[in-house]
Amino acid sequence: MTSAASPAYRRLSVEERRGQLLEAALGLFAHRAPEDVSLDDVAEAAGVSRPLVYRYFPGGKQQLYEAALRSSADALNRCFTEPEDGPPTERLGRVLDRYLAFVDGHDAGFSALLRGGSVVETSNTTSIVDEVRRAAAAQIFLHLGAERPGARLGMLVRTWIAAVEAASLIWLDEGKSPSAGELRDWLVDHLVALLAAGSASDPETAAVVRRLLAQERADGPVAGLARRLAPLLGAAAHLL
Amino acid sequence: MTSAASPAYRRLSVEERRGQLLEAALGLFAHRAPEDVSLDDVAEAAGVSRPLVYRYFPGGKQQLYEAALRSSADALNRCFTEPEDGPPTERLGRVLDRYLAFVDGHDAGFSALLRGGSVVETSNTTSIVDEVRRAAAAQIFLHLGAERPGARLGMLVRTWIAAVEAASLIWLDEGKSPSAGELRDWLVDHLVALLAAGSASDPETAAVVRRLLAQERADGPVAGLARRLAPLLGAAAHLL
Repeated sequence: MTSAASPAYRRLSVEERRGQLLEAALGLFAHRAPEDVSLDDVAEAAGVSRPLVYRYFPGGKQQLYEAALRSSADALNRCFTEPEDGPPTERLGRVLDRYLAFVDGHDAGFSALLRGGSVVETSNTTSIVDEVRRAAAAQIFLHLGAERPGARLGMLVRTWIAAVEAASLIWLDEGKSPSAGELRDWLVDHLVALLAAGSASDPETAAVVRRLLAQERADGPVAGLARRLAPLLGAAAHLL
Repeated sequence: MTSAASPAYRRLSVEERRGQLLEAALGLFAHRAPEDVSLDDVAEAAGVSRPLVYRYFPGGKQQLYEAALRSSADALNRCFTEPEDGPPTERLGRVLDRYLAFVDGHDAGFSALLRGGSVVETSNTTSIVDEVRRAAAAQIFLHLGAERPGARLGMLVRTWIAAVEAASLIWLDEGKSPSAGELRDWLVDHLVALLAAGSASDPETAAVVRRLLAQERADGPVAGLARRLAPLLGAAAHLL
């Protein structure tokens, strides 16, 4: 099972070995619940002995799990980075494409990350999830041109992030249906709708929306949403 | 500390005594983290001895905590029930008023409920939270006239519920600012905006929205939102 005698085994540096073990753990935690992954599984997947895993991760499974969460959080944070060029909804679409590809590729691990770690909820696992949420919010505020948002706009963005997390978990629960592309479009529409509604009662949000609208294209998602909503105006005629 | 000798003590039936102990526990769990409530605190608040608490709740604090969660879940579920009369956004406003009053009156307990119980996350505590979420969704589907909603409408409502939970926790975290009334109006606008955006890409949602619009009033929240959004149309003229 182990390949302790192979030449490759001896040549790995400490950092390489640690990375190899973490990679093996990540592969297992990505698609299985943490309670269904044993240290023996990690050792076997990495082709090493159990004591060797303990030498690199003396805290055992909990330490490996937290390192895997850390690594997942870093990967998620990298998804969020997007140049401030082009129509904002297209930027958001690209970020969501990367994010949903991550969710798709780490289904069980992602669910576990959002539960705050189901091995055990330590203050550390919770703070990792919250850190990802803060990083996502910070990127959105950057693109909105509102790096120090007021309470209304802050709550709007943070509740949208909660809605994205919920939608992601429902998506996984429903066998990844609809397609990732449809879910992405729906989440973009969702934020556009929220920002529009928010601008009705908050001057800061209204100013942000005007700046964003000026950067949108006539063949982009905002224009498409507006056109598809036009028939609804007839049904609301008695209100206007 | 205890009033074991008082006449009132002997007159309580088993059910009354259980109710009294639960009431005392609820009062404590409502405003303190579960780990900051001891069985002695419960005994003292109820004016009884610690062994008496154990006689009614042999599982000790965990059992009392789960009973308190159960009772909170029942109270929340009662908030959701609303007659199917009048403009739908006004019904939703009344439900949210009762819900936010509950959140206001049970701040720490509510946060703990949403964390799935921070004493320990048992499969039982999680299922209580999920049961409240399902009850909320079922009531919304009832008022939407879509008791067996399709995937799109189902995801829309469930993500809005997640957004309401997130907004409630942010609201508590920010010292209950803005006022409960403002938060209620914002959450109503939020669902209206989501339904409008959803109707652009889902025929079932579009049909639901038409039925809802027919029941709204010209001085109600939907009309108000539409009027306040009118200035935005100018900013979007290049898209239309």
